[in-house]
Amino acid sequence: MIRFTSDYCEGAHPTLLAALADTNLEGNPGYGTDDHCQAAARMLCRLIGRPDAQVHFLTGGTQTNQTAIAAFLRPHEAAICAASGHINVHETGAIEATGHKCLAIYCPDGKLTPGAVQAVLDAHTDEHMVKPKLVYISQTTEVGTVYSLEELRALRRICDEKGLYLYLDGARLASALALGSISLTAVASLTDAFYIGGTKNGALFGEALVICNPALQPDFRYLIKQRGGMLAKGWLLGVQFEKLFENGGALYLELGRHANEAAARLREGLKARGVLFDVDSPSNQLFVQLPESVLEGLQPDFAWTDMKPAGAGRRSIRLVTSWATTQEQVDAFLAALDRLSPSGQF
Amino acid sequence: MIRFTSDYCEGAHPTLLAALADTNLEGNPGYGTDDHCQAAARMLCRLIGRPDAQVHFLTGGTQTNQTAIAAFLRPHEAAICAASGHINVHETGAIEATGHKCLAIYCPDGKLTPGAVQAVLDAHTDEHMVKPKLVYISQTTEVGTVYSLEELRALRRICDEKGLYLYLDGARLASALALGSISLTAVASLTDAFYIGGTKNGALFGEALVICNPALQPDFRYLIKQRGGMLAKGWLLGVQFEKLFENGGALYLELGRHANEAAARLREGLKARGVLFDVDSPSNQLFVQLPESVLEGLQPDFAWTDMKPAGAGRRSIRLVTSWATTQEQVDAFLAALDRLSPSGQF
Amino acid sequence: MIRFTSDYCEGAHPTLLAALADTNLEGNPGYGTDDHCQAAARMLCRLIGRPDAQVHFLTGGTQTNQTAIAAFLRPHEAAICAASGHINVHETGAIEATGHKCLAIYCPDGKLTPGAVQAVLDAHTDEHMVKPKLVYISQTTEVGTVYSLEELRALRRICDEKGLYLYLDGARLASALALGSISLTAVASLTDAFYIGGTKNGALFGEALVICNPALQPDFRYLIKQRGGMLAKGWLLGVQFEKLFENGGALYLELGRHANEAAARLREGLKARGVLFDVDSPSNQLFVQLPESVLEGLQPDFAWTDMKPAGAGRRSIRLVTSWATTQEQVDAFLAALDRLSPSGQF
Amino acid sequence: MIRFTSDYCEGAHPTLLAALADTNLEGNPGYGTDDHCQAAARMLCRLIGRPDAQVHFLTGGTQTNQTAIAAFLRPHEAAICAASGHINVHETGAIEATGHKCLAIYCPDGKLTPGAVQAVLDAHTDEHMVKPKLVYISQTTEVGTVYSLEELRALRRICDEKGLYLYLDGARLASALALGSISLTAVASLTDAFYIGGTKNGALFGEALVICNPALQPDFRYLIKQRGGMLAKGWLLGVQFEKLFENGGALYLELGRHANEAAARLREGLKARGVLFDVDSPSNQLFVQLPESVLEGLQPDFAWTDMKPAGAGRRSIRLVTSWATTQEQVDAFLAALDRLSPSGQF
Repeated sequence: MIRFTSDYCEGAHPTLLAALADTNLEGNPGYGTDDHCQAAARMLCRLIGRPDAQVHFLTGGTQTNQTAIAAFLRPHEAAICAASGHINVHETGAIEATGHKCLAIYCPDGKLTPGAVQAVLDAHTDEHMVKPKLVYISQTTEVGTVYSLEELRALRRICDEKGLYLYLDGARLASALALGSISLTAVASLTDAFYIGGTKNGALFGEALVICNPALQPDFRYLIKQRGGMLAKGWLLGVQFEKLFENGGALYLELGRHANEAAARLREGLKARGVLFDVDSPSNQLFVQLPESVLEGLQPDFAWTDMKPAGAGRRSIRLVTSWATTQEQVDAFLAALDRLSPSGQF
Repeated sequence: MIRFTSDYCEGAHPTLLAALADTNLEGNPGYGTDDHCQAAARMLCRLIGRPDAQVHFLTGGTQTNQTAIAAFLRPHEAAICAASGHINVHETGAIEATGHKCLAIYCPDGKLTPGAVQAVLDAHTDEHMVKPKLVYISQTTEVGTVYSLEELRALRRICDEKGLYLYLDGARLASALALGSISLTAVASLTDAFYIGGTKNGALFGEALVICNPALQPDFRYLIKQRGGMLAKGWLLGVQFEKLFENGGALYLELGRHANEAAARLREGLKARGVLFDVDSPSNQLFVQLPESVLEGLQPDFAWTDMKPAGAGRRSIRLVTSWATTQEQVDAFLAALDRLSPSGQF
Repeated sequence: MIRFTSDYCEGAHPTLLAALADTNLEGNPGYGTDDHCQAAARMLCRLIGRPDAQVHFLTGGTQTNQTAIAAFLRPHEAAICAASGHINVHETGAIEATGHKCLAIYCPDGKLTPGAVQAVLDAHTDEHMVKPKLVYISQTTEVGTVYSLEELRALRRICDEKGLYLYLDGARLASALALGSISLTAVASLTDAFYIGGTKNGALFGEALVICNPALQPDFRYLIKQRGGMLAKGWLLGVQFEKLFENGGALYLELGRHANEAAARLREGLKARGVLFDVDSPSNQLFVQLPESVLEGLQPDFAWTDMKPAGAGRRSIRLVTSWATTQEQVDAFLAALDRLSPSGQF
Repeated sequence: MIRFTSDYCEGAHPTLLAALADTNLEGNPGYGTDDHCQAAARMLCRLIGRPDAQVHFLTGGTQTNQTAIAAFLRPHEAAICAASGHINVHETGAIEATGHKCLAIYCPDGKLTPGAVQAVLDAHTDEHMVKPKLVYISQTTEVGTVYSLEELRALRRICDEKGLYLYLDGARLASALALGSISLTAVASLTDAFYIGGTKNGALFGEALVICNPALQPDFRYLIKQRGGMLAKGWLLGVQFEKLFENGGALYLELGRHANEAAARLREGLKARGVLFDVDSPSNQLFVQLPESVLEGLQPDFAWTDMKPAGAGRRSIRLVTSWATTQEQVDAFLAALDRLSPSGQF
């Protein structure tokens, strides 16, 4: 079975796995108070040029989003997000479970714009409505699109003007960074907080939440513990991030680049075959339409994520590549397409 | 540095670590829908003789307690626990953060009794007060004591009579099982839900929540996701529990026994030296008093958990052994005591 | 100042005020355990032909919605509503504050349809998303429209098929009942729970929540207390509802009819003058567009609710009539329009 | 039936009722934005000499406590209170329902002391536990005792030293003020926020929350709305507080004094008859023990609150007087005692 279901179908990159084995019996204090976590945090602060930032390591994305947003907002404050935003759709109401409303607005390509933010602000005028306070974006987005530096700057500007926090969900930040349109330093300078996804880029698990805005830092560890996110053997997170970010984050970037290259090869192969794309995404997630008959034929050997019917006997699906995807796997998929539709009609 | 701070200072038992490495690139579906999780769940159901039980794997104890209790209770219902109960003291209000009150009652040895439960019930008589609905116990308890089979049966009886759920926190269940006073089957037959702790008994992380009461099972995975506890690479949990529980749970029990034996050796050594015990605990946690001067001398080489001043220049401390504690480590501690107090006065 | 701002700008209907004065020094037990509340509850149960229904009296609409929905749903369950639904927009996230997501869907006339409900269900397929469980509607709706009996029956059918609760917010139920398209008995037979609004129909304050579905009744008073809604002098609510609903609810209906008639007179007057309507609403709320210059001229003498810019120098406004609106007030408004736009151009 | 059950068994003082009737058809904007609320707020600010204070009117005590504490605390912060504190026992977990733990400590006479506060602080040392942040006291307390000026000052000092908020629940503040041991100005100068109870001192309903600490003021109205506490006809609260506090609060104090005098007459009568007191309370709540046989005899004519068995065939009960209690009612109770126990044995 070759899986394009997601970028978390394999375990850890061998370098990280080896580091976990090497440190297995070291003996470390618990809950992230160990030297590995501290070293990894310092490494990240140095890399982004923000010695005053706070870095916390958590195990997953929903946990990180929920803990951060619950920590940052007062009870009546709400998060603005794209309707397709992960917090709005795919976290089983985790944000609402902490008491906060997601103010979702439809964005054609999954990217929030200053105009969309302003539209939400315009609709929330007094104390009978929640107060928009935090702008949630993801980079890359849930549909694989990427904010340019200029787009992020524009969001920062409206956040500054309106007194909003800008929070960036970086579950797939590696893919965005590897595309070169934006640097980690820029992300840090433009957001109040963001997280660097490890789970989807070579770690067994783990996300590094960076809190850039000092006003949002106090007592954050209390929140991690309260939300069930404080890993007893916290050094497991530090050890992995040390490896991902030593040498200026070389491995982290390399794995992101690998996933992008696999996606590019797949994208080109699909385009060459005339496959229809639902989204024009440059990153490691591809959204395409395939005939149901073809999908049936692929099923014994390949896995993907089904999205929705696309009409005319077709379905929209998502294909995701990762640091572990091989050229052979991509080629096998394309070859299977050729085999299943000799006419080349998709 | 030799650590008696806790039983989560080392990584995974080599068998588990090897299994994680072996399965690293297997390619698995996410979120615990993989074969390893299913196999481990079946294994546990068979072991406890409850094919109708539900098993869910989560990463940590606070997360498990919070998710389970939030799932089981209606908004006005509350959990009865010993004042020393983990949910009452050491989870940063995780239960309250889901909206539920902990009704804590002082229990001298950390163990709830039917009398204590009844006292809480007597004090909660109408809708101006919360409604006690779930009895939370831990086995072993936070102070290392162990419920006997008869004590658990008595709690079950009052729960049946009063319509209460009985929930058992098994973070350190291995130590209790290895002491032989109660079996896993008995735990399953007497509780509505309980969890089998992996983190403190040889796993990198992981707890297996067993929901025995069918009325508490529906939709539980929604709750795991909502509380941020659904691990993307969920098979990591399944793989570890497969190893811990293959062959009837041989490894799980063996690791618990190892921790207990190390504790026994330490206990005897301390008793032989006249060290005062704060609690009479048969398991892998020891609570003793030592002079501050002795503790100062131990500090460069040993770590423990400081509890509180004990008067007369002494402090109460906690010493914990684990599956990874060696005989040499215990002996080194005892030898250090002898060196630091040649008079043998503690 | 003549107010068309809302239907809660005056105190109580004289009959209710007199009853409050008459019973002022009676001496009653607190928290709604008095004879008046019980008599009023029995009256309502008889009127709807449901002796098994539970009736609770609360002080306001947001409080009632929040308490009911928090009581009815498990943590991962969500409420489906029109995007314009009161719980979605005008309750400052009260539902989310209890942990539940509002699944809002755009409905042109503020009325949910089975198709809209189905669309929400289709988009929520697994445990990574919240589980739709309750359908929230209001009668009359937030834009003054009214569900017909057939429309309510259709919603009931889809709720039955899909295992959803149907909850009806009756803040302005009087206006709907007085229009004659649906009876109180029908509302009770088609919903799992609904409330009969007193605040907007002659009471100082007060809503009567009727829980028809026995599965939703247990322990409801705990929830009222927990959410801060249990009025110490609860009989104030009972006394008022006794008056509104004695003689088969004659006064309640009469007040609703009065408000509708005032609205009809106003509607006809506006239509006769060619004023544009944003919504075709038959009840006591009218949504119209007026030129800003006209509004400026009205401001010293009249009050209304401003909605939004309508383009071309006009604004959309809301005009509400109530049990206390007089024919003279309506005529004064229409006369002012004539005075302010002698050309008759609106 | 003569009721000593509580101080909320009658409606409003005639002066307030008349004011409500007088303003009934005035026409007022909703939600507390009217002139009456503003005038009453200014009146209170002037009276306490704090023009910078914020005053909000809510309908009940639980609602006020819940809204204030939810507004003031971050998610991991907790409220310190006496074990007998209203928020800890009699609000059905309303505080926990907003996510915050009550850190209850046993206080023999229901009054928190700096030592008790310090004991709670000592037990909460790191992020594995909640962070104590607000000290909740009530004046008079739940057992009728009263903090002296010096006691309040001592609590203020420890709050200042430790960075805690001091919040005072004034459900029965009138009784305390009327006893003369402390002034409203002193309460305002020593607390971060407090509320002035109307419900138990002559109002139909209503509490005036005074937020003295400017850091706790922003956006408070959002919280009121979100918690369901924003009364549509908010002027009903303003009108009543205007009457209670015009002329420097003359009526408010007079009603408190009346309740105290009735309690004093009752207290003396009971003491003269040798009745045992459970608490030495100077205010309008008396806690005494009476033989069950006597209570049985009283039942047809009198009502009180049963507390608990007191041993030897006796029960502890609570007797409460109010602004509406008459001398005749007190004398009738004492006469009944004499009749029921001719021997004078209680």
